Amino acid sequence: MQRTFASDNYSGVCPEVMEALQQANTGHVSGYGNDPFTNEAKQLFAEEFGPDCQVYFVYNGTAANVLSLRAMTRSYHSIVCSEHSHIYIHETGAAQSHTGCKVMALPSHDGKLSLETVQHAVERESYWGHHATKPKVLSITQPTELGVIYTPDEVKTLADYCHNNDLYLHMDGCRLFNAAASLDLSLAEASTEAGVDVLSFGGTKNGLMFGEAIVFLRPELAHEFDYLHKESLQLASKMRFIAAQYIPFLKDKIWHKNASQANRIARLLAQGLSQHPEIDISFPVQTNQIFATFPPSLIEELNVTFPFYTWNDTLHQVRLVTSFDNTEEDAQHFLEKVGVTFPIK
Amino acid sequence: MQRTFASDNYSGVCPEVMEALQQANTGHVSGYGNDPFTNEAKQLFAEEFGPDCQVYFVYNGTAANVLSLRAMTRSYHSIVCSEHSHIYIHETGAAQSHTGCKVMALPSHDGKLSLETVQHAVERESYWGHHATKPKVLSITQPTELGVIYTPDEVKTLADYCHNNDLYLHMDGCRLFNAAASLDLSLAEASTEAGVDVLSFGGTKNGLMFGEAIVFLRPELAHEFDYLHKESLQLASKMRFIAAQYIPFLKDKIWHKNASQANRIARLLAQGLSQHPEIDISFPVQTNQIFATFPPSLIEELNVTFPFYTWNDTLHQVRLVTSFDNTEEDAQHFLEKVGVTFPIK
Amino acid sequence: MQRTFASDNYSGVCPEVMEALQQANTGHVSGYGNDPFTNEAKQLFAEEFGPDCQVYFVYNGTAANVLSLRAMTRSYHSIVCSEHSHIYIHETGAAQSHTGCKVMALPSHDGKLSLETVQHAVERESYWGHHATKPKVLSITQPTELGVIYTPDEVKTLADYCHNNDLYLHMDGCRLFNAAASLDLSLAEASTEAGVDVLSFGGTKNGLMFGEAIVFLRPELAHEFDYLHKESLQLASKMRFIAAQYIPFLKDKIWHKNASQANRIARLLAQGLSQHPEIDISFPVQTNQIFATFPPSLIEELNVTFPFYTWNDTLHQVRLVTSFDNTEEDAQHFLEKVGVTFPIK
Amino acid sequence: MQRTFASDNYSGVCPEVMEALQQANTGHVSGYGNDPFTNEAKQLFAEEFGPDCQVYFVYNGTAANVLSLRAMTRSYHSIVCSEHSHIYIHETGAAQSHTGCKVMALPSHDGKLSLETVQHAVERESYWGHHATKPKVLSITQPTELGVIYTPDEVKTLADYCHNNDLYLHMDGCRLFNAAASLDLSLAEASTEAGVDVLSFGGTKNGLMFGEAIVFLRPELAHEFDYLHKESLQLASKMRFIAAQYIPFLKDKIWHKNASQANRIARLLAQGLSQHPEIDISFPVQTNQIFATFPPSLIEELNVTFPFYTWNDTLHQVRLVTSFDNTEEDAQHFLEKVGVTFPIK
Repeated sequence: MQRTFASDNYSGVCPEVMEALQQANTGHVSGYGNDPFTNEAKQLFAEEFGPDCQVYFVYNGTAANVLSLRAMTRSYHSIVCSEHSHIYIHETGAAQSHTGCKVMALPSHDGKLSLETVQHAVERESYWGHHATKPKVLSITQPTELGVIYTPDEVKTLADYCHNNDLYLHMDGCRLFNAAASLDLSLAEASTEAGVDVLSFGGTKNGLMFGEAIVFLRPELAHEFDYLHKESLQLASKMRFIAAQYIPFLKDKIWHKNASQANRIARLLAQGLSQHPEIDISFPVQTNQIFATFPPSLIEELNVTFPFYTWNDTLHQVRLVTSFDNTEEDAQHFLEKVGVTFPIK
Repeated sequence: MQRTFASDNYSGVCPEVMEALQQANTGHVSGYGNDPFTNEAKQLFAEEFGPDCQVYFVYNGTAANVLSLRAMTRSYHSIVCSEHSHIYIHETGAAQSHTGCKVMALPSHDGKLSLETVQHAVERESYWGHHATKPKVLSITQPTELGVIYTPDEVKTLADYCHNNDLYLHMDGCRLFNAAASLDLSLAEASTEAGVDVLSFGGTKNGLMFGEAIVFLRPELAHEFDYLHKESLQLASKMRFIAAQYIPFLKDKIWHKNASQANRIARLLAQGLSQHPEIDISFPVQTNQIFATFPPSLIEELNVTFPFYTWNDTLHQVRLVTSFDNTEEDAQHFLEKVGVTFPIK
Repeated sequence: MQRTFASDNYSGVCPEVMEALQQANTGHVSGYGNDPFTNEAKQLFAEEFGPDCQVYFVYNGTAANVLSLRAMTRSYHSIVCSEHSHIYIHETGAAQSHTGCKVMALPSHDGKLSLETVQHAVERESYWGHHATKPKVLSITQPTELGVIYTPDEVKTLADYCHNNDLYLHMDGCRLFNAAASLDLSLAEASTEAGVDVLSFGGTKNGLMFGEAIVFLRPELAHEFDYLHKESLQLASKMRFIAAQYIPFLKDKIWHKNASQANRIARLLAQGLSQHPEIDISFPVQTNQIFATFPPSLIEELNVTFPFYTWNDTLHQVRLVTSFDNTEEDAQHFLEKVGVTFPIK
Repeated sequence: MQRTFASDNYSGVCPEVMEALQQANTGHVSGYGNDPFTNEAKQLFAEEFGPDCQVYFVYNGTAANVLSLRAMTRSYHSIVCSEHSHIYIHETGAAQSHTGCKVMALPSHDGKLSLETVQHAVERESYWGHHATKPKVLSITQPTELGVIYTPDEVKTLADYCHNNDLYLHMDGCRLFNAAASLDLSLAEASTEAGVDVLSFGGTKNGLMFGEAIVFLRPELAHEFDYLHKESLQLASKMRFIAAQYIPFLKDKIWHKNASQANRIARLLAQGLSQHPEIDISFPVQTNQIFATFPPSLIEELNVTFPFYTWNDTLHQVRLVTSFDNTEEDAQHFLEKVGVTFPIK
C-alpha cells in the first residue's frame, strides 16, 4: 500500500529483518529466551554497550519505558521529564499507573531539558521533604519527540547532575538510531557512554516487526528484573522472534542503513518545504521528524494523497515522519503537491 | 505550649470536641461504624448536605482526597487540578500512586482555576484519544491552598463544564469551614449546592483531634465504597471516636465558631502587616492563611519567638496560618515584634 | 533444531502463518489497528463469536488474562480460580499485581472446578461483608492446565452460578483450540456459547509467532477498554502483524489443523506410555498435554535426547506437550527410547 | 452502654489513656511528629525494643500490616501466611492491593504455621523461578487469630528459616500484649528478640482510642519510609495524639494491666464453658479469645443480652473476645445465662 509520512510505525518490516524472522523459524528452541537467537542478540548488545550491560527484550516502546522506570523507582518517587515526552503525553498515563510515581513534565527547548530547569524542579520538590515526592529519575528522549538531538555533552551534563543528586538518568531511545546516524556516533556514544543508566532501546520505528529492548548499565538496577519482566506482561514465550530481528539490525548495522535513509529523506523534505513562503518549520530538522505550520487548505489537500498527522490543530502544525522505506520519489511527489522544487542534493 | 502561626495542625483539640470524645467513651458499642455516635453524626451530615448524601469517615485529609479520587477514577483517567493543589504538591504523590492516574497541575490565579484553563487542558489531553489519558475529575480546593475563596458562581461554572464533558467535580474542603464562615454561607452553599460531586470534608485543621469525612452527592459514586473504605486503610475500628467529634462540630456549629475566630485573627494580622513598607501580602486574605514576602532578617528574628513556615525561601515568602485557638493577643504580640501597630477593630 | 515435548512454545511458526506475515508486509498502513488486516481479522472473530463481540489483540497470554481481569474488577474484588491455574501459579503474580485483587486458588479435579467448591469459597468470603473482598470473577481454563476439558454443560453450570451471584465468568483459552478440536466443537461452542463473559483467546501455543486476543461478550465490560489496552502496554503499533496471523488461522481453520495434529500425537504417546508398567499417567489425556510419573532413571535418560519438563520433582512427574509440528516419528522415536511399542492406530 | 464479648474494639478507651490524651491537648506543637509527645513515646519504644529500632505511628492495624509489608516487598514477591491470618481474611484484600504481591495462605494448626508447611510452600513457589513469584515475607500473628501463642522458640525456628532463605519475618502483633502477658514475657521477648524483622504493634484492641505502630528492627527496611508513611495515608498531622496514648501504655505498663485483665476473664469464661456438655472449646484458650461450638438455640438466646459473633454459622462456632474493661461480673452473668457455675478461682 501507499507510503506515507504519518509515522514510522506505518511502515512495515525491512527485508533483512523479515529474512531473519524466517531463518529463526527452525524447529524447537527453548521458550522465554534461553535460545541461540537470544544469546547471539545479547552478545551483540554487549559488543555495542559493553560487557556489563544487561539486556531484556520487551514488546513495545511503552513497555520499554515503563519497565525501565519501574526498575528505578518506588511509588513515592517522582520522575522528571519534558512537557513533550512520550511518557507524559502519549502513553495513556502508563508511566504513572505502573510506577505510581508523580511525573513532572517541565518546560523544554525543542523537547530538550536544560540543567537549570531540571535543577529548579528537583529542588522545589525536595524542599518539602517527605511531604512531597522524592525525585528519583530524569527521563530524556534521544532524539526528542520534536526530532531534536541532545549532544553527548548535553547528556553528560544532565547525567552528572543526576548522579550527584541521587537520581538516575533514563533515556527513551525509541529513535536513538536516527540520532546516532545523524551525529555519526555509535549507539553507545549517543546514549550510555554519556552517562545514561537505563536505556529504552527502540527497533519497531526503524524497520522491526515488533520488539524493543531495555539496556541496564548498572547491574543493581536489574536486580530481580527477571521477575519484573514476566510480571509486567513482557516476557515473550517465543522470544527468539524478537531477538532474531536484532541480529542483522546490530551485526549488519541495518539500524544505521534504515535510520540514515529516513534522516536523508526528512532533510530533503525540509529543504524543499523551507522554500514555501507560508510554511514555517517549527524545530531544527535533525532526524526523521519535521514539524511545520502549514496553510490550513494545504493540510487538507495534501492529506488526501499523502497521509500525515496534524499535531496541533489550533496552530495548523503538522508532523511529517519518514521511515526506512521512504524514497526520494516520495519526497519529490510530496514537494510537488506542496508546490515547491525538489532540492538539488 | 506556646501558640504559633505555623499551621492549623499545630493547634490541639477545641474544648467542645474534647468533651465529646470523653462522653463517647462509655462502655461497648459496635465497631466499624454501626454505633449511636456514628448514626447521629451521619444524620447531622444529612441535615447539612441533603438526605441523599452518603458520608464516610476517614482518618486524615490526604485519605479523604485519595479515596474520593479512587471512587471516581480508573487508572487510565486523569485528574485536573491547580499547580498549588495539596493533592499535587503536598501529599507525597498519594493521588497518583493510589489512583494510578495522571495528575495535571494547571496554572491558576491565587490557586483558583479558570474555566478557560481547565477547558484548554481537557481538550488538549482528549485530542489524542486513547493514546492519552481520559480526563475524568476536576479537583478544586475551597478555599485554595493560598487562602482564596471560590464564589458559589465560580464553582458552578466549573461544575457545569465538568457535567457537560463527562468529568466529575471534586472539592478538597479541608478548610471549607473558613471559606463558608468568611462568605457567611452554609457548608453546602459553599460546596455541594454549587455542583460539587464529591467533597473531602475537613475537621482536623479546625479543632478536631483526627478524622475527616467524604461526602458523596451521587450515590453511584459510592457504589461498593464500603469495600474501598476498608481496603484503603481508612475504616476505623472504634469509629465512634471520629464520629463523636463531628456531633458538636455540626450540631452546635463549633465549626463556625472555630473558623470565624481563625479568620478574624488572620484579618487582624493582615491589616497590621500591610502597614509595613517592606512586607508584601501575596494574595487576598480571605480566610485563615496569609502569604507574604518579608525582609529576610525579619523572618529569622520573628521565627525564634513565633514559629511559622517559609513557603518559598528564594522569594522570602512566608505563610502564617491562624488556628481556632489563636487570640488577639497572639496577633498583637506578633505585630509588635514586626514593628507595626495593632489595627483598631 | 530438534523437536521436543517440552512446551508448545518451543515450536515455531506454522507455514501458513509465516506466509501471512510476509503478505502483510506491504507498504504503509495505519498504526495501532486501524488497518485492513486488523479489520479483516476482527470480522473473522465476529463470524466465530457473534456480531456483538469485541476483540482486542494483545502480545501474550499473560496479558490476555491480566487485561481481561482488569476490565472486570476493582482492587477490592476477588478472583476465584483453580489451584492449578496459570494465573495463580505461572504468571509471577501478574493477576494480583495488575488488578490488586485477592486471587483465591481452590482445590480442583484435574484442574476443573466444581460448582460446590466455587459456591463454598464465594459464600465463605462473602460472609464477612466489606471486611473481606467481594468475589467478582470466576476464571477457568479450557482445557485445564492439566490438559482436561470442561464440557459445555460444565461451563454452563458455572456460568449460571456466576450470573446469578454477581460474578463474571472468564475463560483462559490459551489452548482452547485443543479443547474444541478434541470435542469436535466450534471455538464458540467450547467457550462463549456456554456462558463465558470474557475469553482469553490463544494463538502462540498453536503455531503463531506472537499475539493473543481478548474477546468480550458483554459490551459494558469493554467500556473504555481502548485506554486500558494502551495503558497496559498491549497496544501494538504495527498491529497488522498480530492481526494478519489470525487471518489464515480462522479463515482457513489452521487452528483446527494444528490443534488436531498436536492432540493426535499426544494420544499416540499416551497409548504407548500406558503400556509401561512403571509409568503412571496422571490425568485423562484429552488434548495435547500428558502428565505422568516416570521412573527417575528414565526421566534423566529420555531428557538427554528429547527435552521435556519435570513438573514435580518430588513425585517424579513429568509433563509432555505436543505441538502442531510434532510428528508420528517424534512419538515413535520417544516411545522406542521408553521401551514400549508404538500403538497401532 | 452494655459490655459485650463481641470484640476488643467494642470497648472504649482505658482511663489512663484518656487522661494522657487530655494532657497532650496543650497549646501548639509541631505537626507530623516532631513534638515532645512523639519523642517521648519513641524513646519508650527504644527502651522496649532496643536503641536501633525505628518506630512509626499509623492509624490502625490494617495500616500497620500493609505498610510493614510494603516496606519489605516489590510487586512480584509473595507473602506467606496462615489461612486464618487477618491479612488474608479480614482486611478486604488490602495486603494484595497495596503491595501487588501474591499472598499465599497456608494450612495451620490453631492459626500457627509449622516450619514444614512454610518450607514446602516456599520451595514449591520457588521451583518455577521467575515464572512464579519470589517468596519474600513470612507473616505470622502473635497470638494467632484463633487466640493461640507462638512460643519464642517457635518464632525463632521460623525466623531462622526466613533469614537463611532470603525472606523477612513479619509479625502482626495487634494483640501482642495478650500473648506477652500470658507468657509472662516482655513485649520484645515475645516478638523481636525471637527474630521478627518488622512488627505491627497494636494498641487499639487493648484500650487505645486509635493508633498502632510499626517497629522496624532492620534499619535498611525503614529506608525512605518517611515517604511511604505519608504516601500511604498514615502520617497523622496531629501525631501527638497517637503518640501520647503510648506514653502511659508503655511507661506505666498499662498494656500489661489491660491485657492481663482481658486474659483473666477469658480464662474464667473458658473454665466455666468447659463444664457444659454441649459446648466444645475449639482451640486452647491462651489469651483473650475463645472459639467454641454452641448449641444453636443457646447462641440465639445468649446473643440477645450479651452480643458476640458467630464465627462459622455452619459449624455453630462462636467467638468470644474479652476486653480490658470486662469484669468478673460480666463472666459470671454470661455463665449464668449459659447455665453453668462460675469457676472458683
